Amino acid sequence: MREILKGNIIDTLALGQLRVREQGYLLLEDGCIRGVCDSVPEDWADAAVHDYGDGLIMQSFADMHLHGPQYPMLGMGMDLPLMDWLDTYTFPVEARFADLDYARRTYRRLASDLITNGTTRVCMFSSLHTDATWILMEELEKAGVTGYVGKVNMDRNGKPGVLQEETEESIRETLRWLDGCHFEHIKPILTPRFTISCTDELMAALGRIARERGLYVQSHLSENDQEIAFTHELHPDTQRYWETYDKFGLWKDHTLMAHCVWSDEVERRAIRDAGVVVVHCADSNTNICSGVCPVKRMLDEGLQVTLGSDIAGGAQLPMYKVIAATIRTSKTRRMLDNWQSDFLTVEEGYYLGTTAGHRYFGAGEGFATGDKLHAIVINDWDFPETAKPLSVQQRFERAIYMTHRHNIVSVWSEGREVVHRD
Amino acid sequence: MREILKGNIIDTLALGQLRVREQGYLLLEDGCIRGVCDSVPEDWADAAVHDYGDGLIMQSFADMHLHGPQYPMLGMGMDLPLMDWLDTYTFPVEARFADLDYARRTYRRLASDLITNGTTRVCMFSSLHTDATWILMEELEKAGVTGYVGKVNMDRNGKPGVLQEETEESIRETLRWLDGCHFEHIKPILTPRFTISCTDELMAALGRIARERGLYVQSHLSENDQEIAFTHELHPDTQRYWETYDKFGLWKDHTLMAHCVWSDEVERRAIRDAGVVVVHCADSNTNICSGVCPVKRMLDEGLQVTLGSDIAGGAQLPMYKVIAATIRTSKTRRMLDNWQSDFLTVEEGYYLGTTAGHRYFGAGEGFATGDKLHAIVINDWDFPETAKPLSVQQRFERAIYMTHRHNIVSVWSEGREVVHRD
Repeated sequence: MREILKGNIIDTLALGQLRVREQGYLLLEDGCIRGVCDSVPEDWADAAVHDYGDGLIMQSFADMHLHGPQYPMLGMGMDLPLMDWLDTYTFPVEARFADLDYARRTYRRLASDLITNGTTRVCMFSSLHTDATWILMEELEKAGVTGYVGKVNMDRNGKPGVLQEETEESIRETLRWLDGCHFEHIKPILTPRFTISCTDELMAALGRIARERGLYVQSHLSENDQEIAFTHELHPDTQRYWETYDKFGLWKDHTLMAHCVWSDEVERRAIRDAGVVVVHCADSNTNICSGVCPVKRMLDEGLQVTLGSDIAGGAQLPMYKVIAATIRTSKTRRMLDNWQSDFLTVEEGYYLGTTAGHRYFGAGEGFATGDKLHAIVINDWDFPETAKPLSVQQRFERAIYMTHRHNIVSVWSEGREVVHRD
Repeated sequence: MREILKGNIIDTLALGQLRVREQGYLLLEDGCIRGVCDSVPEDWADAAVHDYGDGLIMQSFADMHLHGPQYPMLGMGMDLPLMDWLDTYTFPVEARFADLDYARRTYRRLASDLITNGTTRVCMFSSLHTDATWILMEELEKAGVTGYVGKVNMDRNGKPGVLQEETEESIRETLRWLDGCHFEHIKPILTPRFTISCTDELMAALGRIARERGLYVQSHLSENDQEIAFTHELHPDTQRYWETYDKFGLWKDHTLMAHCVWSDEVERRAIRDAGVVVVHCADSNTNICSGVCPVKRMLDEGLQVTLGSDIAGGAQLPMYKVIAATIRTSKTRRMLDNWQSDFLTVEEGYYLGTTAGHRYFGAGEGFATGDKLHAIVINDWDFPETAKPLSVQQRFERAIYMTHRHNIVSVWSEGREVVHRD
């Protein structure tokens, strides 16, 4: 089936490079992009046209780090540092997901809020509950969200009796969970919460499972000074945090590491050389006072950097807000560096929140030919009247800062239009 | 006329002190607060009751610094430092307000967006246009917004031929403007843009007018290093920026100074001793890389600090978002200070965005007896379901981070309900 999307097409092929096509055409065949052009090719004359008028056809967002079971505590408990915040707020809330009805309601809401805000790809932490994790995966898939979800592993330093597994149980449940995953667009990813939460025995088992089943891994790295110090106590034979994952075969290509706020030059090199992908979570780093990540430097050094909302350390689910927060945080970093480092531009923020994330899933740059379409359409008709007509590029900039959910009139995920507002 | 507001009442009497009354009653007589209590007094049995159910009755917000004519450029031009940003974006946009039809449309929209987001008091910069300034005042008044608006004075370092006055013209137009102000709830305030924009002759004239007519003054102070250096060049006889206002009688009780990011100990003492009021604009300071204001230190030193959205250096009009940005910025300040300074709590942010501002207009602390009511009602029914029932105080915290305009179901300004959503 051939379809055409008509409107102002804005994608980003590389960091800081925006491609703007005013009143262009995006050609789609069975959900796959066949090209972006200025006029309709003759042999496409019969294709169905989705005419978005003067709307902005942009890439959809990829949220590369968030905790599904923390969605209920969005915007709460922001006055505590990481380790206290986990103990006081997070663990009790996650424990609630033993209740599958509660999980169903919460995850259905989360999935709906994600897709209607234009997030079509995710890498998400669930809780340690196998059954609730399947429910999360199912609700995401039903809503049209794609990507990876992980049942969390944690067999120490949790809340015994409330939120913690036995080692054997954690391994057994992981295997049961993996065997029960049968979703088309939501795949499993191994998810040791972080080194502090997992015994060596559990980490070693996860490393084996990753190798045997060819699975990716996601976790946390170098977020907070107390966390780093505690990790070092647990692994006194290591020099740096990343080695505690490497020991067990979890440090490899496509391993996702959230935060990396305090990764020094050596750790950053280890990230780059292994093909590990950084997930920068600006809002969370600020909210729980973790630190100000030197993102621009990471990019200059050639690291792969993507963005995450980090719900609920982050308090903003929509990725356009996360992009704006990322830009602001990069300006804070600049001020911290005595105005010696560059901040991220709007175009760069857009790249990190879209193409950088989509590439993790095997996609090409921007609206690349052959890729399944992941896109949103923004209608900015209700933004304040400007002093003079804006270029499409200026409208794009304003859209990043000012979009609300109702401005997103269409969402395409994996080649299908899954949200449509008249 | 006697009315009663029924719901969960949350006000703040001092910095960090929250007063929560679950299912309480706020008594109102001819728009004036007569008390807050747990049950209805016998002689109030006949009063009309506004029953907001389980809603949160909170203080409305005071936005103490924003530029009305910059509303059209919200979320744009964020990649430039202050002086370039003014020249490239701001001045051309402000020049557009010579067109009174455009001014009418823009200011009507702005007034509506302010009041429906719960901002009932403002101190606002207009442009240098007298007639457009009256239109701004009229539209605010019609919408139910109260406070002060200033026609801007600028007779140098603007954009000659586009946005700049002759000295005589600026003085003459200021007097014409003042004589033409006849609004009940929107009053004039003298508004030299900043020292860079005003010759000594103009500043002296404004000082005289302020004294003769008993008017307040608003301007900018110590926002950005280039601005400070330029100001010093223009006034080589001064040690610090604040003296350039003091010279001309503009540094006095109730003078509002936006930013003060770089005010040192001496300047901060001058602020405190004169009764000058600081308007902290967190979002703007970050967006245009001005710096990270030490707000907590200012408060500890006894300065009066209020909050401003600083549209359009700030990109967020709703004051609940400005409060969240203020809290985040105070955490950045903490990180900059090597975790040695405290951040602002949610309760403290709420105080700065409400009571601290309302006091400028002569109001008391919180919902003080005798004051005209300024309040909002937040209905949080569509927030994600929590893991367990929340206290009203927890709901308050979540409301600061998560409110959207549609959650504000009622707005009271100067004793009248000016917004009501079913």
